Amino acid sequence: MDHVFAGIDIGGTTVKIAFIQEDGSILDKWEIPTDKTEKGKHILRDIAASVNERKNTLDGLTLKGAGVGAPGYIDVDHGVIVEAVNLGWKDYKVADILRDALEIPVFVDNDANLAAAGEKWLGAGDNANNLLAVTLGTGVGGGILAGGEIIHGHAGLAGEIGHITSVKDDGAPCNCGKKGCLETVSSATGIARLGTEAASEYPDSSLHAVIASKDKLEAKDVFAEAGKGDQAARKVVQESMEHLGFALANLCNSFNPQVVVIGGGVSKAGKQLIDAIRPSFNRFAIPKIADETDMVIATLGNDAGVIGGAWLARQKLTAAEAG
Amino acid sequence: MDHVFAGIDIGGTTVKIAFIQEDGSILDKWEIPTDKTEKGKHILRDIAASVNERKNTLDGLTLKGAGVGAPGYIDVDHGVIVEAVNLGWKDYKVADILRDALEIPVFVDNDANLAAAGEKWLGAGDNANNLLAVTLGTGVGGGILAGGEIIHGHAGLAGEIGHITSVKDDGAPCNCGKKGCLETVSSATGIARLGTEAASEYPDSSLHAVIASKDKLEAKDVFAEAGKGDQAARKVVQESMEHLGFALANLCNSFNPQVVVIGGGVSKAGKQLIDAIRPSFNRFAIPKIADETDMVIATLGNDAGVIGGAWLARQKLTAAEAG
Repeated sequence: MDHVFAGIDIGGTTVKIAFIQEDGSILDKWEIPTDKTEKGKHILRDIAASVNERKNTLDGLTLKGAGVGAPGYIDVDHGVIVEAVNLGWKDYKVADILRDALEIPVFVDNDANLAAAGEKWLGAGDNANNLLAVTLGTGVGGGILAGGEIIHGHAGLAGEIGHITSVKDDGAPCNCGKKGCLETVSSATGIARLGTEAASEYPDSSLHAVIASKDKLEAKDVFAEAGKGDQAARKVVQESMEHLGFALANLCNSFNPQVVVIGGGVSKAGKQLIDAIRPSFNRFAIPKIADETDMVIATLGNDAGVIGGAWLARQKLTAAEAG
Repeated sequence: MDHVFAGIDIGGTTVKIAFIQEDGSILDKWEIPTDKTEKGKHILRDIAASVNERKNTLDGLTLKGAGVGAPGYIDVDHGVIVEAVNLGWKDYKVADILRDALEIPVFVDNDANLAAAGEKWLGAGDNANNLLAVTLGTGVGGGILAGGEIIHGHAGLAGEIGHITSVKDDGAPCNCGKKGCLETVSSATGIARLGTEAASEYPDSSLHAVIASKDKLEAKDVFAEAGKGDQAARKVVQESMEHLGFALANLCNSFNPQVVVIGGGVSKAGKQLIDAIRPSFNRFAIPKIADETDMVIATLGNDAGVIGGAWLARQKLTAAEAG
């Protein structure tokens, strides 16, 4: 119990870092700016300096390892970030570099996967070994845990559930190159798009009034107006969440997670969101799965990534010790 | 390399058994009848007697463990068959009973999962650690390997891909209680149903002639007539495989397997089947996944289960030795 794990979540603006004990107690949590100059070559140096400095406060406790989350495409077996466009990294040996600087084992994974693991460990995920996390933000991201492990798939694309085809015919084009992706209808961007379309279709709607007053519409406006009873907004919420319920039901039909954790900006709609997803989820899920799968809102917010990072280090090192 | 693993596949009519070496060499393969009298209480005794007898032929080699596949719902952690209706078993401690009788470790899993593992190890699966196996038979079954392990999900339902909702609106009712399951359109039964409907819609079709001549239509007839150019049959194949391609694409979008292995009776259509799935698979899959995911026909036939059983014992015991 005197073991501590560092979670490190590298974002485009800040790097979040936390020291977490084996039992999940968060000892320290802080952030440093992400220095993206010179193709991000200072980022890991800054992280190492910060961790090594704070390590001195770990009175009598030992920092055993670190788990690092980063955006982009990652070779988790080798701890290499193959490409993270917004950090400037390409084929960057993050695990090796940080291990040398910190003198502890370092593990790397995708930030969405680590957010899923964080919610499992200390968030809404009830420590479920089989868990699906969905992030409804600018896009739709996700992470899947099966049998207590993050699954990655053959090329690291497992859990990229935003590109499930939800709109089979005449779907909107997606950045990924195909059409009708879940992301085009259930992300904050997708909901705003559907809301804007509905506003022009229903000029008497309060959605239309929102656009007129602030010149743009956000997903939260759509949920707010739907909550107040605006029919156009309700129609958009229903359409968007019907697609999400369909996609989640089919994921649960195939993976059978104990719990679906929904996070990201759109999840601030809370119970209104879950209530909108459930009817189509229940319709498209195997009855036993509809009955038994929990669906909850994420609780860790922006801390999910660092907590998941510490979880990763703990899990890898505990497995290695047992082995 | 002197280690041998037994694979045992318990079916409703026969029990298939094989002795397989660590390197995958099949030393022996045989079957015994399944004695379903007295709620199946003799089945394990018969298996143990048969294995113990043949074990004497393993000159200088050691039988290290056994993996057992059975139909129905299984508690893999405890090796208990919770319910296998067609064997008469309920809460039946298969692993414990067989371990006592064979004096080796015994592991139990669902037969569809073990068929997937068998195809991975010695079949069409190219030893892929991330693999999706689909069985198109009377129903649609499946098994998923992620990171080299069979995934089970929270209640053992992972991989039951036949109940993915493929027909979102006005789908045919399924035994599971919902509508539009993949099984209703892409199983042998589903294809025959669609073919029979098409035959009455197109009385000039050769499908109609087949029904008139033999009073029923099977999936293989539909593929045969489609292969000869009958438009009604081609339409059925296209519709059925369009739904299958959609379901498989979304599975691959979420799991990112290296390879999809298609088995079961319908897979005898071979290249004709793959060619019919690919267009919709490629349309609904993320472009990188459409490009990189292999789709192949299973090669092990009815041996997949015993081979998967031996794989399971090998995998569990190798992991335990490493641990």
